[in-house]
Amino acid sequence: MAAHSVAAAHATIAARAGPAPGAAAAPAERLGFRLLSSLAGRGVRSPLPARRAPAAAASSSRRRQSVVRAAAVEALEGKAATGELLEKSVNTIRFLAIDAVEKANSGHPGLPMGCAPMGHILYDEVMRYNPKNPYWFNRDRFVLSAGHGCMLQYALLHLAGYDSVKEEDLKQFRQWGSKTPGHPENFETPGVEVTTGPLGQGIANAVGLALAEKHLAARFNKPDSEIVDHYTYCILGDGCNMEGIANEACSLAGHWGLGKLIAFYDDNHISIDGDTEIAFTEDVSARFEALGWHTIWVKNGNNGYDDIRAAIKEAKAVTDKPTLIKVTTTIGFGSPNKANSYSVHGSALGSKEVEATRQNLGWPYEPFFVPEDVKSHWSRHTPEGAALEADWNAKFAEYEKKYPEDATTLKSIVTGELPAGWADALPKYTPESAGDATRNLSQQCLNALAKVVPGLIGGSADLASSNMTLLKMYGDFQKDTPEERNVRFGVREHGMGAICNGIALHSPGFVPYCATFFVFTDYMRGAMRISALSEAGVIYVMTHDSIGLGEDGPTHQPIEHLTNTRRVFSLRLLQQESALKQDLLFGWQKYIGASGKAIGIDKFGASAPAGKIYEEYGITVESVLAAAKSF
Amino acid sequence: MAAHSVAAAHATIAARAGPAPGAAAAPAERLGFRLLSSLAGRGVRSPLPARRAPAAAASSSRRRQSVVRAAAVEALEGKAATGELLEKSVNTIRFLAIDAVEKANSGHPGLPMGCAPMGHILYDEVMRYNPKNPYWFNRDRFVLSAGHGCMLQYALLHLAGYDSVKEEDLKQFRQWGSKTPGHPENFETPGVEVTTGPLGQGIANAVGLALAEKHLAARFNKPDSEIVDHYTYCILGDGCNMEGIANEACSLAGHWGLGKLIAFYDDNHISIDGDTEIAFTEDVSARFEALGWHTIWVKNGNNGYDDIRAAIKEAKAVTDKPTLIKVTTTIGFGSPNKANSYSVHGSALGSKEVEATRQNLGWPYEPFFVPEDVKSHWSRHTPEGAALEADWNAKFAEYEKKYPEDATTLKSIVTGELPAGWADALPKYTPESAGDATRNLSQQCLNALAKVVPGLIGGSADLASSNMTLLKMYGDFQKDTPEERNVRFGVREHGMGAICNGIALHSPGFVPYCATFFVFTDYMRGAMRISALSEAGVIYVMTHDSIGLGEDGPTHQPIEHLTNTRRVFSLRLLQQESALKQDLLFGWQKYIGASGKAIGIDKFGASAPAGKIYEEYGITVESVLAAAKSF
Repeated sequence: MAAHSVAAAHATIAARAGPAPGAAAAPAERLGFRLLSSLAGRGVRSPLPARRAPAAAASSSRRRQSVVRAAAVEALEGKAATGELLEKSVNTIRFLAIDAVEKANSGHPGLPMGCAPMGHILYDEVMRYNPKNPYWFNRDRFVLSAGHGCMLQYALLHLAGYDSVKEEDLKQFRQWGSKTPGHPENFETPGVEVTTGPLGQGIANAVGLALAEKHLAARFNKPDSEIVDHYTYCILGDGCNMEGIANEACSLAGHWGLGKLIAFYDDNHISIDGDTEIAFTEDVSARFEALGWHTIWVKNGNNGYDDIRAAIKEAKAVTDKPTLIKVTTTIGFGSPNKANSYSVHGSALGSKEVEATRQNLGWPYEPFFVPEDVKSHWSRHTPEGAALEADWNAKFAEYEKKYPEDATTLKSIVTGELPAGWADALPKYTPESAGDATRNLSQQCLNALAKVVPGLIGGSADLASSNMTLLKMYGDFQKDTPEERNVRFGVREHGMGAICNGIALHSPGFVPYCATFFVFTDYMRGAMRISALSEAGVIYVMTHDSIGLGEDGPTHQPIEHLTNTRRVFSLRLLQQESALKQDLLFGWQKYIGASGKAIGIDKFGASAPAGKIYEEYGITVESVLAAAKSF
Repeated sequence: MAAHSVAAAHATIAARAGPAPGAAAAPAERLGFRLLSSLAGRGVRSPLPARRAPAAAASSSRRRQSVVRAAAVEALEGKAATGELLEKSVNTIRFLAIDAVEKANSGHPGLPMGCAPMGHILYDEVMRYNPKNPYWFNRDRFVLSAGHGCMLQYALLHLAGYDSVKEEDLKQFRQWGSKTPGHPENFETPGVEVTTGPLGQGIANAVGLALAEKHLAARFNKPDSEIVDHYTYCILGDGCNMEGIANEACSLAGHWGLGKLIAFYDDNHISIDGDTEIAFTEDVSARFEALGWHTIWVKNGNNGYDDIRAAIKEAKAVTDKPTLIKVTTTIGFGSPNKANSYSVHGSALGSKEVEATRQNLGWPYEPFFVPEDVKSHWSRHTPEGAALEADWNAKFAEYEKKYPEDATTLKSIVTGELPAGWADALPKYTPESAGDATRNLSQQCLNALAKVVPGLIGGSADLASSNMTLLKMYGDFQKDTPEERNVRFGVREHGMGAICNGIALHSPGFVPYCATFFVFTDYMRGAMRISALSEAGVIYVMTHDSIGLGEDGPTHQPIEHLTNTRRVFSLRLLQQESALKQDLLFGWQKYIGASGKAIGIDKFGASAPAGKIYEEYGITVESVLAAAKSF
């Protein structure tokens, strides 16, 4: 597999090297440093089918408008909603979620109703972002690890002014082709950082995002310029905290001392099977303390706004540890008959209960309505976000003058544009070259690339000397040496894969790699599948294929893995390159032969009612008849 | 997939229902209750190829010899080795491991050298077993979760008198066809309970074994007869403790209050990449306390024998919590130049260092030598083990008189023999039956089977109401209601699968099932693969296949999983049924067609030097030439 990994590395990096179509077509004034800010994100990735085209191109004219120059944090904190307006804003979030789930008759209203207060405080008072450029490099990152509650995030993106989630998008929740699929998908919705839903992935992604920030800050910040400086916030639920992947990633976050990672544990005592008492009675906060985290408990997450604010302030003051804020909430808060029960977890409330909830929370408005004062309050994020970015741009211009070489390197990571001629650094092999183990050749390539690809960073799940993945010119990324590039993941394959997804999606110039024995892809398939689906571009260095392992025996000998892994990664390729649709990969070809026709699936699915998907994918009575008649 | 699961359930149970060939051929005097004791184990499972045939048939003549009737625990404790003999016994274990790894030039000597003291105390002083009948029902179970250290277990089985590991087997360590493969494999070596190696699996198996004991004890014990009464011991290392699966399973063990689970954490500070400081600085004991475990720290595991003994005594006194005994050891203890370093973790010491270690520990003997006094000391386990079993048999005879119905049910679980006519309980469907969702039909079958299959027990990873897996006539298996049969696993797929492996391998009559959405097999593939490899016979109820899920979107829609999963489970079938070898399953058939020949792998591998395996599997230059010439 090592040979494959090298090929994959080359291909992954090559795909990022040239200017992307969008970038090439950009007007001249957007090149240079403007390119850095406006194209930092999906713009430099491979093109997607029309329905998936990201709305990444921020309005440059808007950014040329006069901007508010006030220092950002103080501005945000000084303008916090209070009293009635605050309650109204929080209830707006709740009802946008209730209404969208009700209209779709599908989804999870309970979490948004319970987490609306912390969501409001994060997006309205705490986080720094520019809604008109979701890919601004120095933005705070937010991850909804409990991805089923995605209407919380869509409501917040909508209020904050993101163009990706307009009113019509909320009304299209979970429908074919919408920007608001059933779980957060970064490739669908600008403003969504990573793809979550399978529980535990998101918190591990958040660890990767926070690692990326700590690494870049250590490499590029100067005593007179903190050019990299953002937080990573995450909301995770009981389900995430039960998953082993979360423990793996959080153990590493504690080990690395990721002080700018702040996770909110939505402690609502309800999972799909009922009260968490039936399966989850551990002391979560004590566990996180054992993992090296700072922990805080907000006992009333339903309307203890000041407690939430104070907890975030305290979390920021602890700079050498990540913080878990356990926020006790009521799932489905406000629903008189369904709050605090599993029935509000994953189903629409039903029109009667929606009405009862409107009465209970004093919400006289029609569905999807955003009161004018709430709208007006949130509208400031557009100019303030532009100001935040403009401030940072000015800061970067100063930085570039003083530290031109570092600025060039940082730009490469921010934009994903590789230095010219990078591929020349690769070792050359000829038929006359001495034979060698593929994993040794892999290491030669990784080491050659590390010199010219500034975002290449990674490591192994405790098998570095077997996988041959050490970058010899660098030390270990550790708590006190975060500028280094060898990451020691320990024996934590699943967490490793998901952390690498987070690193990859932090900035387009990151090229994370991770390694283990090929058979242990069994432990991290969940993360690998999301790498493929979300185009995270992680390089998997998987060594020790097949019975060639010898003595370690059948538990260590991968037999079925190459085909299975190819299938997973090919799904995304198939979705993008129809020329491949007839290939290496599915079950019926053997029987139907080259001239046969199969009606089936050869790509990932999508979010929509089932009937609609069958129709869009051509799995219908009509298509079967047509295929039969065509012979 | 639910439809498949029903079929799987039927097939799994049917395979256990009839007497196995070995059982059918047993002499008459071994039937009845003798059958219960002598065949409790692999004997009632499907037959294996010759090299894998288990040596399960205990010598009944030996069991008819006069037996030592002294109460077992007191006898064992009263005969503990002390002083020089103790050191000699522990060093015997160390050198058997050193010598076997040296002869194979492959393996992991470090763990056995460090863990020999706790291994000695467990097998010589604490555990109750009958070496001449490794499948005696009421034995204590031992799991080496750090499976790479398997020479520790082989050395102990050898000293204890198990027929599966004789001197010649130790000399065949990691060789083709031996009983001493590179990681512990239950299907190769009687005395090995489960198959470990992939880290974290074993501790989760141990949780399943302890669950099984607690469940049976609650169902069958009477105020005047504790007919089910054994402990489950486990040794796990740093690697196991880093894996998420271990946290999942241990969270459940704490939740369930598995007081008879005692786990030894070999705290040796070394993993393959070096000192655990580089990736693992959490407070493991504090984490386990947060999970609801009792914890003890033995600071000197290298020769603090009394501390180890005291810790086990304390652990047994805590009956409502599992116990983690952290035992700080020196990996490779005794090796003057390699102890406490990664170099002793996974490689032979080398002849020079073996010699230096012999000098250092004062070991003048030739390789594989067991001193006479050590041999003599351990020899008592054969009569004492027979006595333990005979005592229990007598106890069971009493039990059977007083509680004939319970005795019959317990026998069924112990032997795996199902009640006559059990299959008649299954619901009947005809073409006229009303259509229904397959998961509903699955639930009807599970509920019908639960009435007649006494060992059917299981549940879902927090999706019981979606997977339709609740047994309606039973309550929840919980800390205070362990006699019930609905297991609530929480959102812990990987732990669930491995716990079910442990339940299945506790007694042949257990038929555990577990459930989740099909896409989340990605989270537990590691455990599923071991189910197949180790013939654990777990039923996987996997619902919600393909894009039919609709709104949840691509993260929840399995596309590649059916083929991939079939491949994993088919590997074991292929190994057993050569008629299937030409089928449904591998990559080249499409290109070579029905009349082509492929040289490749179509089954799990085995433990032996690579060249030998290639030869045995027919992947050689000669076979390629022969195939080409045959056209």
